[in-house]
Amino acid sequence: MPLSPDQQAEIDAQRAQSQPTLRATSPGIEAQLYRAHPVLDHGFVRVIDYMGDDAAITQAARVSYGRGTKSVQNDEGLIRYLMRHWHSTPFEMCELKLHVKLPVFVARQWIRHRTANVNEYSARYSVLDREFYIPAPEHLAAQSSINNQGRGATLEGDEAARVLETLKADSDRAYDHYEQMMGQEGQQGLARELARMNLPANVYTQWYWKVDLHNLFHFLRLRADPHAQYEIRVYAEVICDLVRDWVPLAYAAFEEYRLGAAQLSATGVQVVRRMLAGEEVTQETSGLTKREWAELMGVIG
Amino acid sequence: MPLSPDQQAEIDAQRAQSQPTLRATSPGIEAQLYRAHPVLDHGFVRVIDYMGDDAAITQAARVSYGRGTKSVQNDEGLIRYLMRHWHSTPFEMCELKLHVKLPVFVARQWIRHRTANVNEYSARYSVLDREFYIPAPEHLAAQSSINNQGRGATLEGDEAARVLETLKADSDRAYDHYEQMMGQEGQQGLARELARMNLPANVYTQWYWKVDLHNLFHFLRLRADPHAQYEIRVYAEVICDLVRDWVPLAYAAFEEYRLGAAQLSATGVQVVRRMLAGEEVTQETSGLTKREWAELMGVIG
Amino acid sequence: MPLSPDQQAEIDAQRAQSQPTLRATSPGIEAQLYRAHPVLDHGFVRVIDYMGDDAAITQAARVSYGRGTKSVQNDEGLIRYLMRHWHSTPFEMCELKLHVKLPVFVARQWIRHRTANVNEYSARYSVLDREFYIPAPEHLAAQSSINNQGRGATLEGDEAARVLETLKADSDRAYDHYEQMMGQEGQQGLARELARMNLPANVYTQWYWKVDLHNLFHFLRLRADPHAQYEIRVYAEVICDLVRDWVPLAYAAFEEYRLGAAQLSATGVQVVRRMLAGEEVTQETSGLTKREWAELMGVIG
Amino acid sequence: MPLSPDQQAEIDAQRAQSQPTLRATSPGIEAQLYRAHPVLDHGFVRVIDYMGDDAAITQAARVSYGRGTKSVQNDEGLIRYLMRHWHSTPFEMCELKLHVKLPVFVARQWIRHRTANVNEYSARYSVLDREFYIPAPEHLAAQSSINNQGRGATLEGDEAARVLETLKADSDRAYDHYEQMMGQEGQQGLARELARMNLPANVYTQWYWKVDLHNLFHFLRLRADPHAQYEIRVYAEVICDLVRDWVPLAYAAFEEYRLGAAQLSATGVQVVRRMLAGEEVTQETSGLTKREWAELMGVIG
Repeated sequence: MPLSPDQQAEIDAQRAQSQPTLRATSPGIEAQLYRAHPVLDHGFVRVIDYMGDDAAITQAARVSYGRGTKSVQNDEGLIRYLMRHWHSTPFEMCELKLHVKLPVFVARQWIRHRTANVNEYSARYSVLDREFYIPAPEHLAAQSSINNQGRGATLEGDEAARVLETLKADSDRAYDHYEQMMGQEGQQGLARELARMNLPANVYTQWYWKVDLHNLFHFLRLRADPHAQYEIRVYAEVICDLVRDWVPLAYAAFEEYRLGAAQLSATGVQVVRRMLAGEEVTQETSGLTKREWAELMGVIG
Repeated sequence: MPLSPDQQAEIDAQRAQSQPTLRATSPGIEAQLYRAHPVLDHGFVRVIDYMGDDAAITQAARVSYGRGTKSVQNDEGLIRYLMRHWHSTPFEMCELKLHVKLPVFVARQWIRHRTANVNEYSARYSVLDREFYIPAPEHLAAQSSINNQGRGATLEGDEAARVLETLKADSDRAYDHYEQMMGQEGQQGLARELARMNLPANVYTQWYWKVDLHNLFHFLRLRADPHAQYEIRVYAEVICDLVRDWVPLAYAAFEEYRLGAAQLSATGVQVVRRMLAGEEVTQETSGLTKREWAELMGVIG
Repeated sequence: MPLSPDQQAEIDAQRAQSQPTLRATSPGIEAQLYRAHPVLDHGFVRVIDYMGDDAAITQAARVSYGRGTKSVQNDEGLIRYLMRHWHSTPFEMCELKLHVKLPVFVARQWIRHRTANVNEYSARYSVLDREFYIPAPEHLAAQSSINNQGRGATLEGDEAARVLETLKADSDRAYDHYEQMMGQEGQQGLARELARMNLPANVYTQWYWKVDLHNLFHFLRLRADPHAQYEIRVYAEVICDLVRDWVPLAYAAFEEYRLGAAQLSATGVQVVRRMLAGEEVTQETSGLTKREWAELMGVIG
Repeated sequence: MPLSPDQQAEIDAQRAQSQPTLRATSPGIEAQLYRAHPVLDHGFVRVIDYMGDDAAITQAARVSYGRGTKSVQNDEGLIRYLMRHWHSTPFEMCELKLHVKLPVFVARQWIRHRTANVNEYSARYSVLDREFYIPAPEHLAAQSSINNQGRGATLEGDEAARVLETLKADSDRAYDHYEQMMGQEGQQGLARELARMNLPANVYTQWYWKVDLHNLFHFLRLRADPHAQYEIRVYAEVICDLVRDWVPLAYAAFEEYRLGAAQLSATGVQVVRRMLAGEEVTQETSGLTKREWAELMGVIG
C-alpha cells in the first residue's frame, strides 16, 4: 500500500471539495483527480491538475473566441488531421500535472525528457522513507543474449531467490546506515545531503511533473513502447489510461497515428511497393540489413 | 471596439456556463475569464484558461499529498523565500493561457520568448481583417537623440498629422490591394500565402499563448519595464493586473524581488559600501563608467 | 546580387584566415564557411560556424574518451541505428550557426521552431534596407481550390502583371514613406521603432540562427517538405545541401529514415497486410477516410 | 587518478592532431581541449569542443557579415552592456561541449538544468566501473543546525571514521553484489538494467554535456554559489576557470554583473536610500524580515 492513512485522508479531503469554474472541464479526468494509481510495489501516479479538454485543442487550432458551435465530429476530424500531419502546437494547449512516486533509477530515465516542469522531493532538505523497489519474481529477468540493452528469460529457482535476498538485504542495510550516519544521539550527525549518497537506485523518490499534451504523447510513445524498460513502461501505461479519460479524441488519434503506427524507411517503402507489384522480395534483394528486414517483417508480416 | 457582436456573444455564452471542478480554483481570475481587456486601438488580452493558484506553488515546492493545513502566512513566507532565492520550478507549476490580439510588429518581439506555446491565426489559411494599429497622437514619438533604441519627444503639429495620414493611407491601400489580388472575380486570385506579404507590420494578428508562471514573470519583467517599447509594454501591464488577480501572493513577491528590485554590480556594491562608510564617492573614483554611474544613481539617488 | 562589395570583402577576408585547431573539423563544410548561398531574389544562407562532424555523433553516443579506433562503417551503422530508433540526443551534439537573409513573412514561419538561438537585425535600433521579395513570375501562384492552405496554378497574363506591379509599387511607396517619416530635415523624425510598422511583410530581414543537428533535421523535415510554402522550402533545400556537406553519414540516414520515409497509421498497416495477403482492398473497405486513402496510395501506389 | 593509461593515450592522440580551420578559434581553450581536469576523488571535466569566442558574441549582436574592424575595447564595452542589460541571445551564440565524470547524486542535481544536451553512459547497456565518491575527511560535514538544506561543522574523531568506513564498506559490498548478480557462470545472470539498481548514489557516472554560454552562465551562477552543495560546486569552479580561458571578456562581465553582483529587493533599495540619507535604520524599522535583513547586511555591511 503506497499511502499512509494521513495521506489518504488528505486525498479524500481534496476529492470532497468541489468548486464552480468557468473553465473547460473534462468529466473523465475529474473522476480520477488526486487518486493514487498504484505502480510497482510502492509507487503511484496521481493527477493533481489539468488544463483543457479535447475541444481546447481545436479551439486553439482555430484561435476561436468561443467554445464554438462545431460538432464533436468536426472536432474529431480536426484532431485526427492535426495528429496525422504533425501539427504539434494545438496539443501543447492542454497541460497535465502529476504527482509520481517512483524508484530513483526510473526517475533518472524519466528526467531525460526535458520539456516538462519538475519539483522533486529534496533529500538535501528532508529524510527519504524506507521504501525500495524489489521486483516481483516474474519481473526478475536475465540479461538478453541478443540485445545489449534488454532482458531475456525470467530468472529461476535458486538464482532468483539469491537476487531477491541480495536486493532486500542491501537495501535494508543501506537504509540502516543512512539513518545511523544522520543520527544525532551521541554524535554530530552527518549532513542529509551527504548521507543520501549511501542509498541505492531502487530507493523511491517522488515529484510533481507537469507537461503539455504534445510532449506527454512523445514521452508515452517512447516509454509505453515494448522496448522501454519494464519499470518505466508500467508508469507510462497507467498514464495512457489517464490521458484516455481526459482527452478521449486526442488519445484515439494518438493510438492510430503514433502508438499503433509504423514508420517505413525510404528503402522499406520501395520493398512494399515491389511486393504489392507481385515481386518476390527477400532480405538479400531488399536493400535492407538483416535487422531492418526483421523490423519490416514485424510490421507487414 | 475590438469585438464584433458575434464574438461578444460567444464570450458571454462561455461566462454563463459554470461547471463543478475538484481542481484548485482562483476566484480572482475566474472573474476575468474570457473577457476581452482592450489594448491599443484594436487589440485585447483574454484569459482562456489557468492552472493552479498561490497554494499550488507551495504544494509543488513541498511535493504535498494534499492542499495542506499550512496557513496563508506560511504560504506567503515560502513564496517570498522561493522568489528571493531564484527557485524557479515551483512557479512553473502554474500555467496561464491567453488569447491576444496584437499588431504584427509587437508579435514579432513577443515571440522571441521561446518558452511558451503559441497558436497563431494563419494568414496562409484565412484572410486577415482590415485592422491596423494607428498610434494615438500622444504616442507618436520622435527618435531619441540619446538612445539608438528608444523614443524622444512626441511629434508635433504638421509632422504628426503627416505621419498619421501616411500610416492610415498606406494601411488602407495595402489592404485594398491585398483583397484585389486575392479576388476571384474575372481572375484566378492570388494565393493567400502570397497576398499577405503586402500587408504592413501594423496589421493585427491574434494568437493563443500559453506559458507557465515562472516564464511569464520573466516576460513581464522585461516587457513591463520602462525600456520596453510602449506598444508591447501596454500588453505586459494588462497581463500584470491579471496575474495579480490570479496569484496575489506570487505577484506581490514578484513586485518586491523583481519588478521593484535593483541589481548592483560587483563594483556597485563596493561603491555603496564606501558611501555608507562615509566616503565621498564620485563617478571618477567609483570605478564605474558614466553610464553605469548614472544607472546606480537612478537606483540609490 | 544579395551582397555589397564591402560585405563580399568581409567574407573574403574571413575565408583567407586559417587557424590551427584541435577540434573535430569537417572539410566539406569548411569549404562553404562564410560564403553566401543565394535564395530568392535578395536572400541568402551563410554558414558562420559549426561544431562536430559525423564522428562526434557516435563519440557522444558512446561517451568516448577519444575519437576512437572504430571504422567508418561502424560509425555509419551506428548513426543509421540511432536515427532509425529515434535516439535524438547524439545528434544534438552537433551544432550549426547560420546567417540568413529572408523576407519577414518567411521569418515569421521560421521562428515558430523554438529550439534554436536567434539574433535578429533590430529595426528598433537600425534602418532596414530597401529590399523586398518580389516573386519570380513562375512562382506567382493562385489560391488552391482544393487545399485551403496551398497554391494552385501559376497566375497568367494580365493578372500576373497586375500583381507584380502592385507588389512592387506598394513596396516602394511603403519604403519611401518609411524614410520620409524618419527623416530629420525640417522635422523631428519619427522613431525607428514606429516607422518600421509601415513596411510590408515582404521586406527582408536577417538573423543569426544557431541550432543543433537533431532540431535542424526536424526543421528540415517539415520545411523541405512539398507541403511547406515555396518561399521557406527553398531555404530548407539550400540548408539540406550544406548539411550533406557537413555530416554526410547523418544526412544519408536522415534521407533514408525521415525525408524519404513514410508513416503508416495503425489502420494503414492493416490495409497493407491485407493487400499483401492477396485481399482486394478499396477505400470503402479500408477503414480509411478518402483523404487518408489518397495519402496511403501516394505512398504505396 | 581518474584516467586509465588507455584513456590518457586516446587524449594524447587527440591533442596531437591539429587541423586548419576557418572558424573562430580561442587559443585559451584550445590549450585545454580534451585534457582531464580532476574533480573530487575520481571525477573530471574535459572540454571536447567549443563554438565561438568573445568576438562571436558581438558579431551576433550586430548580425555582422565579417569579424568586423571594431576594436577589442568596443567588443568589451558591448559585451558588458549586453550582460548588464540582460540581453541573453548573443551569449547563446557560443557553445561548449564537456565530458564530465561525476557521482550520480551530483548528476541528479546537474540534470535539473534542462536547457542543455546530454548523452549519459548507459548502465542498461554497459557495466559501470567500481568507482565511488568517498569524501575527503575535511568535507565530511554535519547537518547544519540553522539551515535545513546545508552543512555545519566537520565531523570529528570516531564519528568521522565510522562514516567513512560505512560508506566504503557499503559501496564495495554493493558493487560485489552488482557483479555477482550479473555473473553468468553457473547461472543466467541478472539483466544489467536491473542489477544497477543496487548501486548507491555515490557511484560515478559520466556524460557528454553541451550547453550554450548564456545557459552555462546561469548554471554557474547557481552552482558556483556558496549555497550550492560542495560536491557540485567544485565542478562549477573548474568550469569557471575553463570559461575564463575560453571567453575572457564575457567571463569578466559575468563576474562583475552576476557572480559578484547583488540583488536588492524593492524594500532593500529603500533601506539603502534611507541609510545614505543619514537615517539610522534597524531591522525593526527596515520593513525587512530578520532573514532578509541579515542577507542585506551581508551585501552592504
